[in-house]
Amino acid sequence: MVASTWTRRHIISLADFTIAEYDIVLQTAASFQEVLSRPTKKVPTLQGRVVANLFFEPSTRTRNSFELAAKRLSADTLTFAPGSSSLTKGETILDTALTYLAMGTDIMVIRHQHAGVPQAIAQEMERVGSQVSVLNAGDGQHEHPSQALLDLFTLCCVLDPDQPRASLMQGKKVAIVGDILHSRVARSNLWSLITCGAEVHLAAPPTLLPEFFRSWGAPLEEAGARSPLHLHWSLEPALADADFVMTLRLQKERMTQYLFPTLREYHRSFGITHDRLKHCKSTVKVLHPGPVNRGIEISSELMDDPRLSLISQQVSSGVAVRMALLYLIGSGKVGDGKS
Amino acid sequence: MVASTWTRRHIISLADFTIAEYDIVLQTAASFQEVLSRPTKKVPTLQGRVVANLFFEPSTRTRNSFELAAKRLSADTLTFAPGSSSLTKGETILDTALTYLAMGTDIMVIRHQHAGVPQAIAQEMERVGSQVSVLNAGDGQHEHPSQALLDLFTLCCVLDPDQPRASLMQGKKVAIVGDILHSRVARSNLWSLITCGAEVHLAAPPTLLPEFFRSWGAPLEEAGARSPLHLHWSLEPALADADFVMTLRLQKERMTQYLFPTLREYHRSFGITHDRLKHCKSTVKVLHPGPVNRGIEISSELMDDPRLSLISQQVSSGVAVRMALLYLIGSGKVGDGKS
Amino acid sequence: MVASTWTRRHIISLADFTIAEYDIVLQTAASFQEVLSRPTKKVPTLQGRVVANLFFEPSTRTRNSFELAAKRLSADTLTFAPGSSSLTKGETILDTALTYLAMGTDIMVIRHQHAGVPQAIAQEMERVGSQVSVLNAGDGQHEHPSQALLDLFTLCCVLDPDQPRASLMQGKKVAIVGDILHSRVARSNLWSLITCGAEVHLAAPPTLLPEFFRSWGAPLEEAGARSPLHLHWSLEPALADADFVMTLRLQKERMTQYLFPTLREYHRSFGITHDRLKHCKSTVKVLHPGPVNRGIEISSELMDDPRLSLISQQVSSGVAVRMALLYLIGSGKVGDGKS
Repeated sequence: MVASTWTRRHIISLADFTIAEYDIVLQTAASFQEVLSRPTKKVPTLQGRVVANLFFEPSTRTRNSFELAAKRLSADTLTFAPGSSSLTKGETILDTALTYLAMGTDIMVIRHQHAGVPQAIAQEMERVGSQVSVLNAGDGQHEHPSQALLDLFTLCCVLDPDQPRASLMQGKKVAIVGDILHSRVARSNLWSLITCGAEVHLAAPPTLLPEFFRSWGAPLEEAGARSPLHLHWSLEPALADADFVMTLRLQKERMTQYLFPTLREYHRSFGITHDRLKHCKSTVKVLHPGPVNRGIEISSELMDDPRLSLISQQVSSGVAVRMALLYLIGSGKVGDGKS
Repeated sequence: MVASTWTRRHIISLADFTIAEYDIVLQTAASFQEVLSRPTKKVPTLQGRVVANLFFEPSTRTRNSFELAAKRLSADTLTFAPGSSSLTKGETILDTALTYLAMGTDIMVIRHQHAGVPQAIAQEMERVGSQVSVLNAGDGQHEHPSQALLDLFTLCCVLDPDQPRASLMQGKKVAIVGDILHSRVARSNLWSLITCGAEVHLAAPPTLLPEFFRSWGAPLEEAGARSPLHLHWSLEPALADADFVMTLRLQKERMTQYLFPTLREYHRSFGITHDRLKHCKSTVKVLHPGPVNRGIEISSELMDDPRLSLISQQVSSGVAVRMALLYLIGSGKVGDGKS
Repeated sequence: MVASTWTRRHIISLADFTIAEYDIVLQTAASFQEVLSRPTKKVPTLQGRVVANLFFEPSTRTRNSFELAAKRLSADTLTFAPGSSSLTKGETILDTALTYLAMGTDIMVIRHQHAGVPQAIAQEMERVGSQVSVLNAGDGQHEHPSQALLDLFTLCCVLDPDQPRASLMQGKKVAIVGDILHSRVARSNLWSLITCGAEVHLAAPPTLLPEFFRSWGAPLEEAGARSPLHLHWSLEPALADADFVMTLRLQKERMTQYLFPTLREYHRSFGITHDRLKHCKSTVKVLHPGPVNRGIEISSELMDDPRLSLISQQVSSGVAVRMALLYLIGSGKVGDGKS
């Protein structure tokens, strides 16, 4: 393990992640991936530590992934479920977090429907002088770092299964297709892909990809570099010669907001199918963060095609990457040469 | 343990279970029953394995029983709760199962309100080439194999606590009373009891026991055997000389379907009481899968009579039998001489 | 550990707790507090034991505290969630408890919205001859013993961190402020504080502190002693020269019952602020069982003032005290010189 070179305490956003940090995550995840291939998929790394999964916004999939990652590191887990919780009793979010701190939590994994909550909790933890680490498991439309990191790990493992590393992404063309506007997954992926040297092409109807997204590439252009970020209001230019196609989940409830005419219409214009992939590189692979609306973002046939779809690998990578993240931010405290 | 002779990968239905298989389950459950009598009721058999309890239809009782069984085998458990889940987000059930597969699940315990879901998931697991085992924890009105197996274990332990085995049921008369029509418990019990040589008498009002149930005994009659299955629309002939009486849960919501006049009426005609048991064998015992509506399916006094009621033993047997099932279907993968 | 002198099997109420018992709890909690300061906060004391958290009334905070306490003693935990449970299927509470007994539960931690339920379950466990211990985690408006014990532990640790003991409370003035009428926390604290020799001053508007509370001190007066219990319908006399101020949670839903005019009015008359504490002892500390309505029971500034607020310590103490309680009532069975 390479934790010794890791200095980041919280993982809130990928905006300022360095290539060196991506490489540590990829390398650590790869070693846990190996652990997961053993019959007994467990290591004692976080024994006696407490990981609290505070999912103010419910999510069975991501919560279970983090829970499993924590259990495989032998940590004890606490789960916060909204609804039947103190929140409905008038307690503030920060006070809820302080309660979990006082119970002895070591790492807080936080999902919240509002952007900024994990950051606010991380600041509160530092204000009161605690050693707790905060891991953002999705905040509003802001970021979802562990998803982008598992996507990156999945891509790099395709390119070199033995030694996944950030430099493999250099010059690769990645198309991100779908509801960019509302997607925290897209935002986090933008940071990781661009930092690792990929060229990112966003494709969506204008209502889901406003002009202001262009500004995300601006800093690079101003620095004299060619912007690695491209916007398209149709699918074809984004897919042309692409190495990877990332589809985003379409939340059906958006329909009520008249952002596009019908789901059928959406699929016809932006749904990914075998046919649509013809203009990509011959080695193209397709990703989706799940849960998938079959036949909308992606055709059912494509989703089930193991030669093209990386969806299952993304879920598997999720456990390894989350083990890596919990290990990296937990190891400072665990370390002390004691474990 | 006798896992070496066990070849079944999934447990979906008891329809094709053999006597040899019943004997393996009974013998394995008996050895775990012994483990459960120790102060430390835990064995390392499934350490590092993941048992996912996917309860699309909620059930605290059965889920807790499986969870405890898994924990006592030292497995890690994941729990899928409907409501706050991806299902409400448009994901198909098979995709949900594939997600748990990709996370590294070894055994899926599945309950669903629709018949056939565990079977469909088992087929999908095989289609994609995984080693996952599926255990049906109740699907619609189809089957509930672990309940029937714990019932069988409970009965055989009454007949010979030291060596529970299928042959003990040979020639025993078992009355099954109540809502046969909607009961997956009754269906699974029919298979196990008849295969083990018991004579099964079903008793219910005609609305809850349609004529077509007679056909379940037909294959045996055609094979020249006297059918071991008898239908009664009144209680007395079913109870006469019975060795065991299995009462079924009456779902009160059926009342709205006008299947019988009133709950009081139902209890008067088909409720089991001390008085009603007078015509059974003197050694008769009563079972109920729970949760019980006291005073409807069974009188409160009878339920609390430890000389006659096996209800508590059924729950205890449940943990031992579920440990046995998880062990048997999990041992192929666990085995490799490594654990 | 001092479990050898502990004889109580259930913890339902503090009404008959002796000073010797308080001392055992305080001393045991102190030793677990030490365990919790280690990097690996886990002991094998209850390995293979089952602690069932039966929370008929939902509570994330208290449930998580008990769960963590059980896990740190290496017990397996089961969680009963209402709503999706057998209760909605017509099962009685005692039958639910008998089911958990039959599954092999060793300790039941019970919260219920109705007073008396934990007691009734404890009696049922004894009636059927089981060894299960019952721990009341809050029943209606009756008692909440673990909360009062963690409050006592918190207070005694302030007075002597190295050796918290009941005698430290002798002659201390404790003000309890707020919704006394509906508070099980207040009831349990009354017993512990008075038994340990403190002088208790209750302060609330008359609607939340009816005259009949005076009778709680009556037995002592009749015994010739000066009553250690005092009632005040305004804040000032309760706070004057107080060593500790316990604020109680105000359930906003009471507002609908016209028990006081407005929340602002309530805060103006009975809310605790820095300014209000001027007449207390200079060493005064403030407690609140949580979750807190900031700016109502207590000002936001005071809540965040680590020199005065013990709220975080209460939560931390909660885990240590609950470990102590599970250990003490579980050790009889665990003991046998085996752990």
